[in-house]
Amino acid sequence: MDFTKMTGAELLHEKEALDGRYAAFQARKLNLDMTRGKPCAEQLALSNPMLDILNSQSDFRSPDGPDYRNYGMGNGLPEVRGIFARMMGVDAGHVILGGNSSLNMMFDTVACGMTHGFAGCRPWAGQSGLKFLCPSPGYDRHFLVTDYFGFEPVVIPMTEDGPDMDAVEEAVKDPAVKGIWCVPKYQNPTGVVFSDETVRRFAHLKPAAEDFRIFWDNAYCVHDLTDTPCRLLSLWDECASAGTLESVFFFASTSKITFPGAGLAALACGDENYRELRKRFGVQIISPDKLNEFRHLLFLKDFDGVLAQMKRHRAIIAPKFQAVEDVLDRELSGKHVASWSNPKGGYFISVDVMRGCARRVVSLCSAAGVKLTPAGATYPRGNDPHDANIRVAPTCPSVAELKQAMELFCVAVQIAAAEKLLG
Amino acid sequence: MDFTKMTGAELLHEKEALDGRYAAFQARKLNLDMTRGKPCAEQLALSNPMLDILNSQSDFRSPDGPDYRNYGMGNGLPEVRGIFARMMGVDAGHVILGGNSSLNMMFDTVACGMTHGFAGCRPWAGQSGLKFLCPSPGYDRHFLVTDYFGFEPVVIPMTEDGPDMDAVEEAVKDPAVKGIWCVPKYQNPTGVVFSDETVRRFAHLKPAAEDFRIFWDNAYCVHDLTDTPCRLLSLWDECASAGTLESVFFFASTSKITFPGAGLAALACGDENYRELRKRFGVQIISPDKLNEFRHLLFLKDFDGVLAQMKRHRAIIAPKFQAVEDVLDRELSGKHVASWSNPKGGYFISVDVMRGCARRVVSLCSAAGVKLTPAGATYPRGNDPHDANIRVAPTCPSVAELKQAMELFCVAVQIAAAEKLLG
Repeated sequence: MDFTKMTGAELLHEKEALDGRYAAFQARKLNLDMTRGKPCAEQLALSNPMLDILNSQSDFRSPDGPDYRNYGMGNGLPEVRGIFARMMGVDAGHVILGGNSSLNMMFDTVACGMTHGFAGCRPWAGQSGLKFLCPSPGYDRHFLVTDYFGFEPVVIPMTEDGPDMDAVEEAVKDPAVKGIWCVPKYQNPTGVVFSDETVRRFAHLKPAAEDFRIFWDNAYCVHDLTDTPCRLLSLWDECASAGTLESVFFFASTSKITFPGAGLAALACGDENYRELRKRFGVQIISPDKLNEFRHLLFLKDFDGVLAQMKRHRAIIAPKFQAVEDVLDRELSGKHVASWSNPKGGYFISVDVMRGCARRVVSLCSAAGVKLTPAGATYPRGNDPHDANIRVAPTCPSVAELKQAMELFCVAVQIAAAEKLLG
Repeated sequence: MDFTKMTGAELLHEKEALDGRYAAFQARKLNLDMTRGKPCAEQLALSNPMLDILNSQSDFRSPDGPDYRNYGMGNGLPEVRGIFARMMGVDAGHVILGGNSSLNMMFDTVACGMTHGFAGCRPWAGQSGLKFLCPSPGYDRHFLVTDYFGFEPVVIPMTEDGPDMDAVEEAVKDPAVKGIWCVPKYQNPTGVVFSDETVRRFAHLKPAAEDFRIFWDNAYCVHDLTDTPCRLLSLWDECASAGTLESVFFFASTSKITFPGAGLAALACGDENYRELRKRFGVQIISPDKLNEFRHLLFLKDFDGVLAQMKRHRAIIAPKFQAVEDVLDRELSGKHVASWSNPKGGYFISVDVMRGCARRVVSLCSAAGVKLTPAGATYPRGNDPHDANIRVAPTCPSVAELKQAMELFCVAVQIAAAEKLLG
């Protein structure tokens, strides 16, 4: 029944029943952590064969001669660059391999802008009033990076087609706006895949700042949950046609393909940026960890191997997403207390509860033993203006745990809504 | 015979003989690369057991609960921090673990100074006329880092006791001087171990700039070549007593203990710097590669395990250092054409040839198939004012190859000297 159409008495009656259910949850003493998008133990085990894929009998000589166990090969293994090029839809000759973290490469790229600048412009550190576009809800760690470097965040609303491009095109008229964070496929947390039109509008963006840069974090480029993967139009190709390749940095990693924290990361960019960043990384480090690259190469083999690995992940996590959506449908449909995403990939389900209720919901769940991502975390500086968005991360708990946690969550959503409507 | 006391005729005669020997070397078509301090294949094999030390049966749960294969544990494994604390002679609670490269951590620390500053001072990027002290001869990659960030290098002469501390104490009176590069034990390339007095003078340094920082790169802290390891006074302890801990960043890595490029790196520093850098790294990366840390922990076990591994390295490389010194002694003693170090550890032998001759020697060797570190590389911006210093890296070639290469080298040193004396 629609909460917004209930009388006060009906709401009170409903809330009494919900309070009873909530008390029952408290008695169960749950202890579940759903704060981050972490793979579960079964997913980690998928990559266990990689652990001892190298041994003293391995052939460590690269085709060019250097021994993978020694110094040298500043940009790592060409074969690995090739796999990332396929994953990211970019040219392999423009891929730079990093360590175990694409976040680290994004941070370093922003840091490069700060001290050395892009496009021959004065370094960002020497400019004032810096701003960065933050499509929201979005990924908290992105926002923390630009926050750390002193950028004022500009919230851009997320739509079904990606960031609100009217808002983006308007915002980039300000020369103090230096970039935008994007997760173009299965966005964190909305699950949105940027539409063809959105991608084309990014390729044809005309920012006032010459040193404006799109940070295209394709974190979930192969992380499909269905038989019919969503297709993301290639920003690389669109920019190449439009002559705007220098305006984009492309990122990806294997963190949610092999091991989080022990995977590989890469970035790609146009000629000029590539030269600037290769120079920087050449000063910063002698080479990335080539043994971990070699492990990945032997384990994944090629792009088809990546896709095969992702099918194994999907078999484990798709039922978890289904379980969450089933509970949300069953408990909340038609009640007008929340709306939620049905993502076709990625790691999150995004729930918008009644305005002003997100913090209360997270707090109720926490008091009953289920930790959720803090309300507001999906907005810059933790400030969700509507206090409405909650990111649900279904991958780590078991299906049985998820059912319990989501039932509690739905009870909390309704209690918070009833409290709000009762005033 | 002393070249400087020969007559012109004697020199010409000597040079004719040397030219003959040189031609014979050219005919042998050698092909040796001694440009970098790289471990040899036998040294790499010492760490092969680490490659498959993890497997699907390993216990990946840390004592605190998190799975090493997953996200989390932002500062890595406490046990590994403990090993680094022993190696570096610092407090384990102040160790930050990095990726596979201490150079990367030094770069990031300088980058932090550039954009965020130290000691509450204006960030370096907002100050002008920045300078950095570069004890020379020294490590080229250090100099490249401060060069990249626009610091003017100030050459500090190396003495038998470390950097010339009179020169250091004078230089730091300039508030534009923001730091100094130090390799305190078995310095690259001189092999010098900083004396107790030098360490104490660093601990009591009174720089004009509050944000002056000592970059203490203890790259060879356990890399002894003799039964009686040189003892380096603990700068950590001296600074703790003097109340100057915030003026130092300590660095080390396992690059030349396990695998170069696939080892571990760490830094340590006082409270205030620690908070600043942990904050930075917490934004930059989710965690270092804990699986590689776990591999190292199982393989090395503890500090004694590190020392045992270093004994195995020594057994392989000490004879190589001996072979180089034997040839230098036999070929050049008493001729007044060169002087050289007899290091008790580290990776290099430093040779000072006759002034104005280093480039010619490197070029003669190269033309006969032996690549050396470019002359000048041990000075900032590749500029050795005397054109005299050459860094010899004995670890990678075999003893037989080294003997050939060093004989050629000695012939080249004498040819260059004869050419110079003949005018």
